[in-house]
Amino acid sequence: MSAVDCPFHLIQGAFTFAEDEGFSLESGGALQPVTIRYAQYGEPNAARDNVVLVCHALSGSAKVDDWWPELFVEGGLLDLEKYCVIGTNILGSCYGSTGPNSISAETGEPYGSEFPLVTISDIVRAQALLLDSLGIDKLKLVIGGSIGGMQALHWAMDYPDRAKHAIAIGTAPLGALGLALNHIQREVIRLDPRWNHGSYTDDKSPSQGISIARQIAMLSYKSATLFDERYGRKLNRNGEDPWQHHSARFDIGGYLDHQGEKFVRRFDANSYLSITRTMDTFDPVRKYASAKAAYSRIKAKVTLVGISSDWLFPPQDVRKLAENIGKYGAECDYREIQSSHGHDAFLAEPEKLAQVLGDGHEIDV
Amino acid sequence: MSAVDCPFHLIQGAFTFAEDEGFSLESGGALQPVTIRYAQYGEPNAARDNVVLVCHALSGSAKVDDWWPELFVEGGLLDLEKYCVIGTNILGSCYGSTGPNSISAETGEPYGSEFPLVTISDIVRAQALLLDSLGIDKLKLVIGGSIGGMQALHWAMDYPDRAKHAIAIGTAPLGALGLALNHIQREVIRLDPRWNHGSYTDDKSPSQGISIARQIAMLSYKSATLFDERYGRKLNRNGEDPWQHHSARFDIGGYLDHQGEKFVRRFDANSYLSITRTMDTFDPVRKYASAKAAYSRIKAKVTLVGISSDWLFPPQDVRKLAENIGKYGAECDYREIQSSHGHDAFLAEPEKLAQVLGDGHEIDV
Repeated sequence: MSAVDCPFHLIQGAFTFAEDEGFSLESGGALQPVTIRYAQYGEPNAARDNVVLVCHALSGSAKVDDWWPELFVEGGLLDLEKYCVIGTNILGSCYGSTGPNSISAETGEPYGSEFPLVTISDIVRAQALLLDSLGIDKLKLVIGGSIGGMQALHWAMDYPDRAKHAIAIGTAPLGALGLALNHIQREVIRLDPRWNHGSYTDDKSPSQGISIARQIAMLSYKSATLFDERYGRKLNRNGEDPWQHHSARFDIGGYLDHQGEKFVRRFDANSYLSITRTMDTFDPVRKYASAKAAYSRIKAKVTLVGISSDWLFPPQDVRKLAENIGKYGAECDYREIQSSHGHDAFLAEPEKLAQVLGDGHEIDV
Repeated sequence: MSAVDCPFHLIQGAFTFAEDEGFSLESGGALQPVTIRYAQYGEPNAARDNVVLVCHALSGSAKVDDWWPELFVEGGLLDLEKYCVIGTNILGSCYGSTGPNSISAETGEPYGSEFPLVTISDIVRAQALLLDSLGIDKLKLVIGGSIGGMQALHWAMDYPDRAKHAIAIGTAPLGALGLALNHIQREVIRLDPRWNHGSYTDDKSPSQGISIARQIAMLSYKSATLFDERYGRKLNRNGEDPWQHHSARFDIGGYLDHQGEKFVRRFDANSYLSITRTMDTFDPVRKYASAKAAYSRIKAKVTLVGISSDWLFPPQDVRKLAENIGKYGAECDYREIQSSHGHDAFLAEPEKLAQVLGDGHEIDV
């Protein structure tokens, strides 16, 4: 644990636990040991009832201020004058928690592509063990977008007595198109000869595969409207002419390549494969056998937020999930962000998120 | 030229021409010689004014009855009692016309990835030369969907005196999202090590790359609604369980892999690269310097048909193109197919196309 220079009072740490039989997973596999990287902003109050758990999406990290800095403003959702904020890196990721690059105690080698399937429930159970170790029993709020929202909902179902309020943004079980996009992205990574069945080194990673996968994902994170406004049919800004050379790109092609290249430098291919599988399997009804069994467990107030232009998690799917949760007794509220930013709006337009959640108010009103 | 056994009176042929300087292309390159594969259904009448030119989309061929058989019904759009129907394979394709697999007279080798950029205008000019050779001066109708519609529109602009009516379905200049999808598909093909910079043999072609590219394209040809209805979150029909094995797929993944595998057997990677580039560059305003200059040339009646669930060529883009064409004097009509089939509706639901075009009526009413 080390405090770092930061505008916040931030503690970054890593909690490692080893259950006797390993940390058993829903899929039947096990991890041994398990490390959960976390970041803690501020301190719990004396009653220890002001803790907000922030759950990240696919490529995020425990460091919430890296990707949701705007929410830390005074009067905001993560106002540290009121709340102690904790972020944790999810299992399968490459930002400090146990993932495909971790050494398996069984083999003494990195898991690589043998890293077992991790479900959202597994991630949440590991988070709960971390919070136990920090002496935090209750959460004032658990919040996240996308896969982060899946975690927030599993908190409400799996630990009904621990979270007072769960907010999930752009979250629902993936539909067929979303499953298809993940399927294709994984195939692209595996097509890169440098993927080598998951055995590669940092300096010879499947960079092209992961770059293209990221480009596909970027399409699903944004909207056609936004792309038309920003890029339309403009030629690539470096002056390439698609009427002349086969390798010449339109502006959108240059943008996507740039996004892909940026992503290669900060994300790992096996983690990407692992987390998209985790995302696919989110389906509360399956875990609890029926919608009633799943949603009637919930005691937390639940807020689901759809995004008008989101086509990865379409607002009608989010609304339907909210209606299903509400049907079985949980207090569940649906709100919608009007944005052309697509799925990404929860990161790109945090002010709109704050607005639909009631800026300047207590989070549980 | 050979007549084949067919429910139609069908002539299949190939017309080869070699201009002195080669067939010069808009991009500055040239092809020498040029072969255009065609299929002729029925015979022109005495006045030679009953010819319908049918233009195919990305992966189609001259054999219109292979992909639009329903339109040949009595009273239908391609009723051979009334019309002589001609289909031609586009430049760049792998179905008999000059494309990347053809031998370049200059090098004595297949063009491969050196095949020059072909525009829609180039394709249409080659078609016009073919029709000249067949003694067909005027077209009663030129019709096509997607890239086929681009050809129909260029007929109306490039040869204003030759076509009486042009019908384009699901056609507009590609927007940023469409350009992005093509960009990514090309990157995927080039990622396949068997692509080998365009030099491969039939038995060692980049089958995985082209399979994945096709899968991406399939998403853009259909709609999320259709996929949810057909596949939803169902497990793959062969019993794979995504909660157990990393390679296990949902039904949509199995469907996409199947589509990819089927496509590999019938299409060539370099042709795919070439034709998606052709598709990207369609932009009538660019060729003629202004919308007014382009659209005021048109003398044909123009009918543009949008498809309600098409997100590759969104109906609002097709409608906007129709409005622009109409603005400069051409008689231009916009109609819309209500369908959940996405872009593919012009092939998947031909009865709806016939309906919006006025089934049972003469095509030019």
